[in-house]
Amino acid sequence: MFTDDYFMEIALGLAEEAADEGEIPVGAVVVCRNRIIAKARNQTEQLNDVTAHAEMLAITAATQYLGGKYLTDCTLYVTLEPCVMCAGALFWAQVGRLVIGASDAKRGYSRIEPSLLHPKTRLETGVLATESQELLTKFFKRLRT
Amino acid sequence: MFTDDYFMEIALGLAEEAADEGEIPVGAVVVCRNRIIAKARNQTEQLNDVTAHAEMLAITAATQYLGGKYLTDCTLYVTLEPCVMCAGALFWAQVGRLVIGASDAKRGYSRIEPSLLHPKTRLETGVLATESQELLTKFFKRLRT
Repeated sequence: MFTDDYFMEIALGLAEEAADEGEIPVGAVVVCRNRIIAKARNQTEQLNDVTAHAEMLAITAATQYLGGKYLTDCTLYVTLEPCVMCAGALFWAQVGRLVIGASDAKRGYSRIEPSLLHPKTRLETGVLATESQELLTKFFKRLRT
Repeated sequence: MFTDDYFMEIALGLAEEAADEGEIPVGAVVVCRNRIIAKARNQTEQLNDVTAHAEMLAITAATQYLGGKYLTDCTLYVTLEPCVMCAGALFWAQVGRLVIGASDAKRGYSRIEPSLLHPKTRLETGVLATESQELLTKFFKRLRT
């Protein structure tokens, strides 16, 4: 039951919530021993804050929950490839594993420098990538009409 | 009166406050038309949050004050060269001008990729660099004894 698809589905649900609120649809969950300890969606418009990406809010919420600054035993699921800011935050948090949905050809950290993540972070990409990309495409199409 | 040294002195005062609280001493101020609209110091230990760097907190505070997401007409002063996460945030905020104190040979964004900042951001480095570096050296020396 607790597969990468399972947790990414939950992140996708959060991305859909973001879209409903007029936000670029990105969702993130942090999982520790098969338990979700943080959920977040992109809230940059709502909070009027460019730093309020789903990953940043998820890292802050997860470390608050754990009472420690590091996420070495956790997996962070995010529906879209993190940007440089979020990759930098994931480095500081020393996240144990990062699972990404769609890649981001324009703003993804890997276009700048694939080694931005912490050397101990294990990486998995392309999980429910099509579903995540469809959400984004639909959102931007609606914005332009 | 409103020189780069003047505002960097204020950022240095915030860095000293951070040191007094057991935090790595880094301070930041955001200035808009010679007016300080945000002040922040590194609070990662206190807030138990790796994202709570001085620059991140200053960006959030400044955009809250302005009621807009961008800092195109502002200057951000920071006593230590931003890391990759903070450079990414400064990119998103489109900060008009960035003034840096000491450079960071280990974790500074420019070691990874000097072009992480927004193309419109004007950059000034080395303002009161010695004073900022001295604060950091003193802090780490005290930590080790």
